[in-house]
Amino acid sequence: MGMVVRDEVRKMKKVAPLVAAMSNEARCVALKKIAEKLVEKQSEIFAENQKDLAAAAENNVPDAVVKRLKFNEGKLNDVVAGIDMLINLEDPIGKITLDRELDEGLRLTRITCPIGVIGVIFEARPDALVQISSLCIRSGNCPVLKGGKETTFTNRILFSIIYDAVIEAGFPEGCMLACEQHNEIDELLKCDGLVDLLIPRGSNAFVRYIMDNTHIPVMGHADGVCHIYVDSEADFEKAIPIIIDAKTQYTAACNAVETLLIKRDDKIKNEFIPKLIDALSENNIQLRGTKEVTELVDAYYEKKAADNAGKLDYEAVDENEFKEYLALIVSAKFVDGVDEAIEHINLHGSHHTDAIITEDEAVADRFIRLVDSAGVYQNCSTRFADGFRYGFGAEVGISTSKIHARGPVGLEGLVTYKYKLVGHGQIVGDYASGKSEFHFKDL
Amino acid sequence: MGMVVRDEVRKMKKVAPLVAAMSNEARCVALKKIAEKLVEKQSEIFAENQKDLAAAAENNVPDAVVKRLKFNEGKLNDVVAGIDMLINLEDPIGKITLDRELDEGLRLTRITCPIGVIGVIFEARPDALVQISSLCIRSGNCPVLKGGKETTFTNRILFSIIYDAVIEAGFPEGCMLACEQHNEIDELLKCDGLVDLLIPRGSNAFVRYIMDNTHIPVMGHADGVCHIYVDSEADFEKAIPIIIDAKTQYTAACNAVETLLIKRDDKIKNEFIPKLIDALSENNIQLRGTKEVTELVDAYYEKKAADNAGKLDYEAVDENEFKEYLALIVSAKFVDGVDEAIEHINLHGSHHTDAIITEDEAVADRFIRLVDSAGVYQNCSTRFADGFRYGFGAEVGISTSKIHARGPVGLEGLVTYKYKLVGHGQIVGDYASGKSEFHFKDL
Repeated sequence: MGMVVRDEVRKMKKVAPLVAAMSNEARCVALKKIAEKLVEKQSEIFAENQKDLAAAAENNVPDAVVKRLKFNEGKLNDVVAGIDMLINLEDPIGKITLDRELDEGLRLTRITCPIGVIGVIFEARPDALVQISSLCIRSGNCPVLKGGKETTFTNRILFSIIYDAVIEAGFPEGCMLACEQHNEIDELLKCDGLVDLLIPRGSNAFVRYIMDNTHIPVMGHADGVCHIYVDSEADFEKAIPIIIDAKTQYTAACNAVETLLIKRDDKIKNEFIPKLIDALSENNIQLRGTKEVTELVDAYYEKKAADNAGKLDYEAVDENEFKEYLALIVSAKFVDGVDEAIEHINLHGSHHTDAIITEDEAVADRFIRLVDSAGVYQNCSTRFADGFRYGFGAEVGISTSKIHARGPVGLEGLVTYKYKLVGHGQIVGDYASGKSEFHFKDL
Repeated sequence: MGMVVRDEVRKMKKVAPLVAAMSNEARCVALKKIAEKLVEKQSEIFAENQKDLAAAAENNVPDAVVKRLKFNEGKLNDVVAGIDMLINLEDPIGKITLDRELDEGLRLTRITCPIGVIGVIFEARPDALVQISSLCIRSGNCPVLKGGKETTFTNRILFSIIYDAVIEAGFPEGCMLACEQHNEIDELLKCDGLVDLLIPRGSNAFVRYIMDNTHIPVMGHADGVCHIYVDSEADFEKAIPIIIDAKTQYTAACNAVETLLIKRDDKIKNEFIPKLIDALSENNIQLRGTKEVTELVDAYYEKKAADNAGKLDYEAVDENEFKEYLALIVSAKFVDGVDEAIEHINLHGSHHTDAIITEDEAVADRFIRLVDSAGVYQNCSTRFADGFRYGFGAEVGISTSKIHARGPVGLEGLVTYKYKLVGHGQIVGDYASGKSEFHFKDL
């Protein structure tokens, strides 16, 4: 396009307050129009998507990426369902979260409002473009969108359909912006003072690069080292499927489990470990355990006198080598109990999502209170950490920061607030001198 | 002290979850003990403060700074009153802000919790040390405190009294930390992964330095360019005292007014401008107006045939030269109406606090909706932007960021949340395959 990003973003900054002031109705009408137009123009969209798929085939793009960049009827139905869900959610804007009379005729109100201009840099997934745009429109924000280059054709038509729908619904010109060139990311990073928030999605290295090269606040997660702690009071019938689901259901996801912490306990060693070994090997999951763990695997196979066929792929590693694999590999070590598990997770985890498997409510409660992560789970898969599964309609990303939004970020993470103070000529001097006094009455 | 900051902060990181799990009662008991001990040991505190005052006199520290570093009975009473107020505020921790059944036996709860380890770097004001510590203890956070060097003696005794009180109340060792050496700030900035949030208070240059030299999230404001827009429907009897209060009540504060925007209107020019000229000159406030403004001042004095005695100090400047003065200087320019005022504020302001003076509710409403600032005021002084005046008990600072807390930051800005998900063995695979389905029931 050859546009100068800063100039376009500066124009967007001017219209952002107008978008912020759009009524709930206008925002919902815009979403309805988007959904209608996407369905209406589906054959054109699919045709553009074919061009991206052809280019991907030519460039030997990996299968996993091709799968994500395909945009078919199934994915169209999903994004349209997501838009319907967003329309039905409560308006996140204009909520009064504090209403206080500071003194007679001096009233303070805190009101939620959009953040403003939000830059989202996301992977090669056309459905992500629709979801992110919809979330921003629903919450009165102006998005600057940069998708993966493998989806250039699909993104271009999707953006143009969405932009037309939004303008038809009465939104101001320039309320959405699409970047296509990779160098435009660096231009965007320099737009501090104009862009209010950046949401990068992608590899650790990419998110770190963004964080290190901008003064704009960044929301995102750099790592997803998720843990499952198997307690002595675990129900093994739950533990095994949860571990397998958390590792295999979407191995490359940030909420996939990477490390198993297991209570050092005879029942566990005698009954759970054999089940775990079989389950891991059946699912082609490699085990990288501490020596204490792998010696049990040795003993298990020795006792079974198993040959190599169907045997677990395992090796002993030092626990300092445990890391985020994003592959069919899981680390494991024994711990003395829930407190050691908590300490390990808080020091070595990434504060994303960590689970305990136990039927002991007191132990579960301790784990949930003391583990310092965005998601603390009992008896379910870490893979549930996701905006759609939380009922948020969609998500713009998952945050492991403790500042602003934490965990899967839906509409609420795209909202800030302002303080409105309405008086009748009050001055601070009168309160400093004692002539007037605050009475702080919540209304 | 010669301590290695990173080692101490690493220990703190380990105890932070224990502090986070302290009961509301335990946190309130700690605050009561702090207040009691401060009163009990007041003569010792005042004696240490005398040492700081003596050093300040020797080093020719400016009067304004000396005034802030003095800690006397009046300031002691204020901080003790602040602690009492904090005790009586609702517990910010453990609030359930979402409670949703995702499916039968799969319950999601969002619970507020402390942020963890918070580094606060603040100016030479002993009362700030007490306020910040109290806010952190009330909200279950572990503070790392670095105060101005001019208050070394006072801060040392205050910290030791507060720390002893907190330990006596059952808090774990190492839950609070004081830095005394300036180089320890740079050590603190490198503690990413251990410190969850930095709150720098001080000059623009200092806050910028912190933001540019750390990967830890920073909450704060770098500028305070606050505006007052005087509308044609302004009540001049309110406008003049508000402008004078906003400029003079505490000139060096970030919420002091810096720029006046005035409706270009005959009534304003004939009636308001003369009142403004007299009020500014009476209060020794220098005016840096656009030519259109200063020509009116010329005309006013010409008509009055005034000599130089008591005459306003004024000069014509280009509006690009308007800035944060933090002194008895105010900028002024005419605008065509509320929309031009809004555009000027959004592009040239610092999103801190901006006020409109008008009796026209529709115009006020437009201003309040479209001005993109933490505080949007009608008919009152910008100086009200303050945690104490908002009824927050105290503040750790004022944020102009739109991420996380915005405006004066009290307890709520020191809080994040976690998602707790309790299941009975649920796995994501079953929802992906359609075997199970979410039903999203808010409880």
